[in-house]
Amino acid sequence: MDVDSRVLAEFEAQLGPKFVKTGADAEGYLEDFWGRARGKALCVVLPGSTLEVSAVLSICRKHKIAVFPQGGNTSTCLGAVPDASGRSVVLSLRRMNRIISVDPTNGSITAEAGCILADIQKAASDVDRFFPLSLGAEGSCQIGGNVSTNAGGTSVLRYGNTRDLVLGMEVVLPDGQIWNGLRTLRKNNTGYDLKHLFIGAEGSLGVITAVSLKLFPSLAPITAALIAFEDIGNLPAITEPLRRTFDSSIVAMELLSGSEVRIVKQMLPDVTFPFDESNSWLLLVDIASDEPASVGDRLQNTIGDAVETGRITDVVVTVNESQRATIWRLRHSLTEAHKKYGMGMSHDIAVPLAQIPHFIEAAKLKVEEAFPAAEIAVVGHVGDGNLHYNVIFEKFRWDGIQNQAETRKDVFKSIYDIAAEMDGTFSAEHGIGALHVEEMKAYKPAVELEMMKGIKALLDPDNIMNPGRVLPV
Amino acid sequence: MDVDSRVLAEFEAQLGPKFVKTGADAEGYLEDFWGRARGKALCVVLPGSTLEVSAVLSICRKHKIAVFPQGGNTSTCLGAVPDASGRSVVLSLRRMNRIISVDPTNGSITAEAGCILADIQKAASDVDRFFPLSLGAEGSCQIGGNVSTNAGGTSVLRYGNTRDLVLGMEVVLPDGQIWNGLRTLRKNNTGYDLKHLFIGAEGSLGVITAVSLKLFPSLAPITAALIAFEDIGNLPAITEPLRRTFDSSIVAMELLSGSEVRIVKQMLPDVTFPFDESNSWLLLVDIASDEPASVGDRLQNTIGDAVETGRITDVVVTVNESQRATIWRLRHSLTEAHKKYGMGMSHDIAVPLAQIPHFIEAAKLKVEEAFPAAEIAVVGHVGDGNLHYNVIFEKFRWDGIQNQAETRKDVFKSIYDIAAEMDGTFSAEHGIGALHVEEMKAYKPAVELEMMKGIKALLDPDNIMNPGRVLPV
Repeated sequence: MDVDSRVLAEFEAQLGPKFVKTGADAEGYLEDFWGRARGKALCVVLPGSTLEVSAVLSICRKHKIAVFPQGGNTSTCLGAVPDASGRSVVLSLRRMNRIISVDPTNGSITAEAGCILADIQKAASDVDRFFPLSLGAEGSCQIGGNVSTNAGGTSVLRYGNTRDLVLGMEVVLPDGQIWNGLRTLRKNNTGYDLKHLFIGAEGSLGVITAVSLKLFPSLAPITAALIAFEDIGNLPAITEPLRRTFDSSIVAMELLSGSEVRIVKQMLPDVTFPFDESNSWLLLVDIASDEPASVGDRLQNTIGDAVETGRITDVVVTVNESQRATIWRLRHSLTEAHKKYGMGMSHDIAVPLAQIPHFIEAAKLKVEEAFPAAEIAVVGHVGDGNLHYNVIFEKFRWDGIQNQAETRKDVFKSIYDIAAEMDGTFSAEHGIGALHVEEMKAYKPAVELEMMKGIKALLDPDNIMNPGRVLPV
Repeated sequence: MDVDSRVLAEFEAQLGPKFVKTGADAEGYLEDFWGRARGKALCVVLPGSTLEVSAVLSICRKHKIAVFPQGGNTSTCLGAVPDASGRSVVLSLRRMNRIISVDPTNGSITAEAGCILADIQKAASDVDRFFPLSLGAEGSCQIGGNVSTNAGGTSVLRYGNTRDLVLGMEVVLPDGQIWNGLRTLRKNNTGYDLKHLFIGAEGSLGVITAVSLKLFPSLAPITAALIAFEDIGNLPAITEPLRRTFDSSIVAMELLSGSEVRIVKQMLPDVTFPFDESNSWLLLVDIASDEPASVGDRLQNTIGDAVETGRITDVVVTVNESQRATIWRLRHSLTEAHKKYGMGMSHDIAVPLAQIPHFIEAAKLKVEEAFPAAEIAVVGHVGDGNLHYNVIFEKFRWDGIQNQAETRKDVFKSIYDIAAEMDGTFSAEHGIGALHVEEMKAYKPAVELEMMKGIKALLDPDNIMNPGRVLPV
């Protein structure tokens, strides 16, 4: 029996042959959700318990086989599929999908890592509580992946990133040891807070097998306000009074360029929307209030001046949930519309809030000068300073580009450089995966990278966990 | 010149003789604020810049001299004074007290580590923003110490622990390298989030020299409700409807035992208070609302039933700030009253919220049985599951105890064991310092301690930073 067959036999002895997949059965786990990359693997293992995850890692460590943990495989940055070596194992958490416990009094829920995000949201609402993490892939992404990547989404402004929602976790370390840190305490100052090392480590330091999360009181009814304006320089003058008036009642604050509206209307004519593309900018604000009837008046008091002076050109306030759903449907159909429209390069940047208008102006100048065939479409969690800045080439224009690979690279570098100059980041919420390892080298301080590498070497000395992801060599 | 003189000369060359203190000039830095311990040191150094901190650490590393960083020296667990060896340096941050920048649009402030907490609060309110960290020592504690110890306080329920308020930091590592991580971004998923390693590490991994912090919109006017009740078992039935109605408008939720009221009234007769000690329990709730006039009605709707059925025995709602100040004055005078009253053993425990009544009952049984001469006085940030559970011996009773040291030890262990059985912690917000190192060994999982020790050895291989604190040997 050769080494590979022996390894497979060891996995099968631990998990049962049914949960060690090869050949055609493994196919679905090897391809990136967005179809951008395919990897190879010796096999895909589907452990059913923490002890089985531990057994898998022990076998991998012994044979120095790389492990690529996989949640819902919805990574936007090639973080969930194996590399091309074939000497690796994909570890899927999908069978570990139980909700372990819900404690409404404590405001906490504990679930296995493979639990689908939407199932956690539902388990919370079943006990009249709210789990705020919300993002496009919530019907298929897994909570272990959300925590491993410190997912963002539309509720960060009020509730924080996934990091801020985690109370405890269980992790299988690269040597197979199990760390049970499944606590549900709000406060616990007893040494280094190790869970924060694993949050956002994208599986490079171990496999998160279960998490304890915060639940919140159910949200009050939400009113959406859609505010149109022309000059991006006025953004702070519009958002600041809103923050002052509505404070933590604001649960989402999204910015949309008029070009996004045009692209959706062109590609997905079924999507209705109260404004046309003639507005340069749209601000979408979700406000939770026990007195929804008064939200309109308070808005009027807050931004009435800006409307009168023309800084705001139009406002729509929803009066029921169906109107709000209509507005958000456009927000959620952008990815699909972009895909149909052409070749989009999406940048998940963040800058300090005061820099948002400057960033938008500087990036526009750059794109117009260096990539005249491209269009700009911006959508973002602007309340967090986070923009998905899209440089899109309509299909026929992209086909006319000679050096496509070079152009892609140039576009990304141009935009990231502008963010970096403004003390911003090249990855606000999407993470690094295999896609942004070069940017780590280019933009992170050396002393910071060295500390990260030291921690990686400490916890994973054989570099078996997600090699080639997160950290540059 | 002997080694010590040479070291002093090196410090003086870097900082100037004025800022290297020995003898009588050093005295004030060697004693614990609460007078419980005195250490020795070769000298006290007062660097004036990050570069000077770096120079100090380089000298200490070269000569293998221990460094005890000191902020406002208000640690409750002997975390800020040197040990008895005398072969060490106290590094005071007090000269590094500048506010570097305030950005109201971004909602952020950047300050040197030695900045007094109250000065940060004031700098925020000067630009119509709010910095929520608030605790008894805010007039003298320093923000670097707050961040290093992940301070808690009275605003955690809504705004989180200090950890949740930190956007970025600058740290001098034990080898003298400077890590500039002074970012002000809300989202930045680019590798391991190293700042969380230093938050709560109590100076054992490096010296935090500056921090960037979140600011929030100014708070709406606050109404305080003081709710008296008899049966601690009813606590969740009282707090849950309040959380549901007022959600994030609740900025503080404190529990007080009637015995606390008695002790304050006895020791500090000037302190007035709307209730006497005949109530078993008091719940103090601060509610921020733009419509303060309606808070009373909403309270009535929320807890009216509990008042009618006798679960709540009395309620006072403040109608102005002076009434609220009266109530909080009692809350803030507990430490002083305890000190006058006798020998108090304060336990900074936390348990999951649903366990609070069970904890209080189990601890009462234990104290009554094992320490009949003691009284129980409870105050706590109950919204966070955090209680300062005080076992107090009135002066004349304590003097009658034979084995005082043993008794102290027994009391602490008894209470911590009960918290541990309920998945709680022995240190919710105060940290470890030199006081709780034994509890780290007793209560933390071995695999977690090993990871912490690995990280310590990685960043501080010569163990010069705050040795003997935080981690057991």
